[in-house]
Amino acid sequence: MEKQQARWLWYPGDLEKYHALKQNFSRVERGCPWPAFWKSDGFRQRVAFRRTYQLNRETSFTVSGTPGAAGYADVNGRKYPFGQPIPCEAGEVKIALHIGCIGCVPAVYVQGDVICSDEGWTVEDYCVLAVPAACNRYFTAPEQNVAEWPRLETVYAPVSAEAVNGGALFAFETELTAELEVKVSGKEAPLVYLGESRAEALDTKNCYFFCHPDPETGRCPRQAVRYAFIPGIQPEEAAVRAFHQYVDIPVRASFHCDDEELNRIFAVAAHTFSLCCDVFFLDGVKRDKWIWSGDAYQSLFVNRYLTGDKEIEQRTLTALRGNDPVTTHINTILDYSILWILAMGEHYETYRDDAYLRRMRPQMASLMDLLMSQRDEHGFLLGRPQDWVFIDWADFDRDGPLCAEQMLFAAACGVMAKYGAAEEKAFYEKERAALLSAIDQYFWDREKAAYVDSFTSGKRHVTRHANILAIVFDLISEERKREIARSVLFNPAVPAITTPYFRFFELDALCRLGYLKEVLAEIKSYWGGMLKLGAVTFWEEYDPALPLEQQYAMYGDPFGKSLCHAWAASPIYLLARYFVGLKADASAPEGYVLEPAKGFFHQLECVLPLKEKTVTIHQSFQENQSGGNAGGGLTASIPGKP
Amino acid sequence: MEKQQARWLWYPGDLEKYHALKQNFSRVERGCPWPAFWKSDGFRQRVAFRRTYQLNRETSFTVSGTPGAAGYADVNGRKYPFGQPIPCEAGEVKIALHIGCIGCVPAVYVQGDVICSDEGWTVEDYCVLAVPAACNRYFTAPEQNVAEWPRLETVYAPVSAEAVNGGALFAFETELTAELEVKVSGKEAPLVYLGESRAEALDTKNCYFFCHPDPETGRCPRQAVRYAFIPGIQPEEAAVRAFHQYVDIPVRASFHCDDEELNRIFAVAAHTFSLCCDVFFLDGVKRDKWIWSGDAYQSLFVNRYLTGDKEIEQRTLTALRGNDPVTTHINTILDYSILWILAMGEHYETYRDDAYLRRMRPQMASLMDLLMSQRDEHGFLLGRPQDWVFIDWADFDRDGPLCAEQMLFAAACGVMAKYGAAEEKAFYEKERAALLSAIDQYFWDREKAAYVDSFTSGKRHVTRHANILAIVFDLISEERKREIARSVLFNPAVPAITTPYFRFFELDALCRLGYLKEVLAEIKSYWGGMLKLGAVTFWEEYDPALPLEQQYAMYGDPFGKSLCHAWAASPIYLLARYFVGLKADASAPEGYVLEPAKGFFHQLECVLPLKEKTVTIHQSFQENQSGGNAGGGLTASIPGKP
Repeated sequence: MEKQQARWLWYPGDLEKYHALKQNFSRVERGCPWPAFWKSDGFRQRVAFRRTYQLNRETSFTVSGTPGAAGYADVNGRKYPFGQPIPCEAGEVKIALHIGCIGCVPAVYVQGDVICSDEGWTVEDYCVLAVPAACNRYFTAPEQNVAEWPRLETVYAPVSAEAVNGGALFAFETELTAELEVKVSGKEAPLVYLGESRAEALDTKNCYFFCHPDPETGRCPRQAVRYAFIPGIQPEEAAVRAFHQYVDIPVRASFHCDDEELNRIFAVAAHTFSLCCDVFFLDGVKRDKWIWSGDAYQSLFVNRYLTGDKEIEQRTLTALRGNDPVTTHINTILDYSILWILAMGEHYETYRDDAYLRRMRPQMASLMDLLMSQRDEHGFLLGRPQDWVFIDWADFDRDGPLCAEQMLFAAACGVMAKYGAAEEKAFYEKERAALLSAIDQYFWDREKAAYVDSFTSGKRHVTRHANILAIVFDLISEERKREIARSVLFNPAVPAITTPYFRFFELDALCRLGYLKEVLAEIKSYWGGMLKLGAVTFWEEYDPALPLEQQYAMYGDPFGKSLCHAWAASPIYLLARYFVGLKADASAPEGYVLEPAKGFFHQLECVLPLKEKTVTIHQSFQENQSGGNAGGGLTASIPGKP
Repeated sequence: MEKQQARWLWYPGDLEKYHALKQNFSRVERGCPWPAFWKSDGFRQRVAFRRTYQLNRETSFTVSGTPGAAGYADVNGRKYPFGQPIPCEAGEVKIALHIGCIGCVPAVYVQGDVICSDEGWTVEDYCVLAVPAACNRYFTAPEQNVAEWPRLETVYAPVSAEAVNGGALFAFETELTAELEVKVSGKEAPLVYLGESRAEALDTKNCYFFCHPDPETGRCPRQAVRYAFIPGIQPEEAAVRAFHQYVDIPVRASFHCDDEELNRIFAVAAHTFSLCCDVFFLDGVKRDKWIWSGDAYQSLFVNRYLTGDKEIEQRTLTALRGNDPVTTHINTILDYSILWILAMGEHYETYRDDAYLRRMRPQMASLMDLLMSQRDEHGFLLGRPQDWVFIDWADFDRDGPLCAEQMLFAAACGVMAKYGAAEEKAFYEKERAALLSAIDQYFWDREKAAYVDSFTSGKRHVTRHANILAIVFDLISEERKREIARSVLFNPAVPAITTPYFRFFELDALCRLGYLKEVLAEIKSYWGGMLKLGAVTFWEEYDPALPLEQQYAMYGDPFGKSLCHAWAASPIYLLARYFVGLKADASAPEGYVLEPAKGFFHQLECVLPLKEKTVTIHQSFQENQSGGNAGGGLTASIPGKP
């Protein structure tokens, strides 16, 4: 066996759970640390790594452990401390690395000529049988501490410094997630207000984040920042720099067409999404900085076309799911548990990582068991008193089972039927069929040609949500989809979707039904509208009717809105999936299908990731033909525009 | 509601689990930290404390949290940071204290005139409904850190300093658990060897513990020490002191009779046991310093007569049990899971703490469920490949189910039938009866008048263990107990018990059968034998046939034996329970029965705890009468010796 690169090793899932705790406890609002308000599962604190070598000659190795951990190496029954070379004779060498750590993931790194922490180590927790030890590309150096996720750093100087309101306002060219360095002559640690907008930084009463820089380093904690206001000084008194810190997840996509507004939308969406890709998919960079399942579900769709990085998806999915026994829903939200199941299906469909699916299957099964335990006599899913039945911020008729939840649940049964363990397939296929039949019987209103929210109240209240989900998850006939488009989607009497969160599903549904012209117009008006207001990142929400100075409020908070929010990056998915027309497809000869929409662009120059490969697409209207070439052994062939 | 003393609050069980991790990861052997080798369950990392007040007037309060935690106070929907006074108007005030902490138990302390962390707060973990918040008498000051269990400190000077082997040997009057302070002129941090025996401290190759004192404080880590050896210096060059540190659990018992050897045995046993009582019952103070269920079970019997401290029992039982789902046995040992169930019964029988029983019942039930899942077709308990079927270090015939495990299991079914939830009582009564009947059918050997280890091997091998357990747990008729006494207990052909661990059960069985004279002789010869060899604490094991210098080895290690071991304190229980004759009995008018053994002492002056009360017993042979008085409202009446 050839020796590989050594790296840190841990129990699968534990590093994710540790860093998820760190992430979900990192939010600060106006001086109040605000840990996420849901069940927060921890990591294993005691594990043992094992491996047996057959040595041709004597050798030695040195073990490092997580700082603060208690542990030792057992070599053929003899104990050795970590941190010192351990000699080994030729012959069979059985190694066990025992480690316990309370405050962080117990992890090990083994350095040696022959014996090192490469492929082949198992790990056990005294609870289940040994499994292959986990590692990743971020932790490969022995001096690292697994508690600190390595981030790249880029230094930004302010693009402007302005004397205003009796203080100095510094602005950066775009939003960053940075440690701001502030050095003021004669003042050790001035008060600094960090804002996503100029208005926020200057509003010292309502600004979301303020701090004193560390007196020694001059640095503020890492935080979303575009504007920094320091009261009581002149701009020339302060030296300010931003150390933008980000996890190394390269953007591998580009989009250039002859519509400059669309190009700019793609670029700003890419920047927005990149800022929200840290160790995990985050909802936003100023707020909440929490790992939400619904937000993460949508991030999958953007991510596959922007970075093709499967690891952030797996880290996020692993962290969200937590530990068994599962007794509460992910983020406390019933539909977010279902979206996690759907996300597992989406992730597998994209990357086909059988090992990950195998590892997570028991956790998919146990979460589905919880959901199945909450059904009523018709098989409909009901929230318990402690569950948040969310779906969207909308005026649902919430009497009895909510139709939109049943749609998601039917889709989840489909995922279990497709990707579940062998014995689950038939069971969930049957459950899905029974549920769809019951939905049709109880929720479909023939007269309105729509699914109603509730069948128990008798109010026959129609919202778009269940109808959209029925289309997106392909739960109904094509005929009924067309019917719903007329009676719901294009019916102004049905209340409009107000959140960008659910707008993702609505635009996806419209694209699936072929309403690309309408979707493109919406992209240009909604996202283009933000650009016209000077947005450098896309927002959590946008009301085209309001002027800039009224855009910052949300949740009853004058600066409550996140101005850099992952779900606002959906144009990347919409453009790549439906306009460029690229879709991973394991059954296709090249592993993808490319079906570009016709009639929208004169010129198209795109690069899109496809797992570890890259597809390059050229399309030219004038020549009425197209050329394609692809990296990584792929060739993209694109029909010319008629 | 009257305001009480404020204290730190946490989720019930979490402080125990955090400190159990600390304890079980604290062992160090010859420079190797050695975390305990079993599933080690963690604490909750995110909880919320809640309380609603109706205020007559405005007030304010200040919240402290675990250092490093992230949290805030929510007061009627508004957020406030910890560490600053929070104002409250008169009227209804709904308070939620949100806190997340990765490395330690999330705990809060609330100071205020009206609003403080006294009785009445609930806590939730987003997983089960809110429960009353936990507290204890050790954490009552706001400046405390719940990560550091407060210990009292007594400073000891060495009783001798000796120049030997080219170095200086310092001796203390007894064994301590101390931070040794070593100040050597001209040497910043000399190497120090700490031994339980002179021989160990001087054997720099095999000494169990060595260290360099901290250069700043001059202190070594807290460790078992009676002898300290510093090579390469003269005794007069070093200033040495021991800072003995111990958890405040007062000994409330004394025993004085006219046999000075017995008095000394009781006193040394009390000292031994006290050293092993830290945050939890420890097996030993040098080694393992781990929380073992079998050792803890026996500690209950001593503790009730020595300290009457129910809290250390509850801390130990809570820590041992860990979290659900339970998939592995406590300390990996099948019989240790059963002994935990038995310990829960013993604990309740002594202290009648209904709240604790109520809290732990679900965990008793789930552990029993695991045990019940491991039965064979006869209902006999079998170990799985990952289980350690221990019982004792003895030569059992381990073919098929082991008889001794079935005896313990039948006793555990009895505990569940007696103390389990209502719906469990009938079930376990039936299971117990069926199991006892099967034991009788398959394991009782009429010819040998003994229970055999295995019925599957056909070897009819008899050890004492199952037979002893049948007596101790009252599983058989009085007639059969007598039969076993003749055919097993007093039959020299049946191999003797070799471990003090199981000797506890054997002596208990003998006492129950009335063989007090034999037991007293054994106490005097075995424990008296250790005293004659100069023991200042009682040992993990003692072989009367060996000279002192051969007493230190165990487990193949020249200084592997613990010289201060909790299970060696059993004379306290044997003397108090069977000779003084005191037994808690909820059905008795005074809550206890006192049935002193007759014919052993001329004079007896005893003080014994009985839960929070104290019983004082005087007995005088000469006067042929006795006087008794009791603290805490009890009166002890003792019949005179005939």
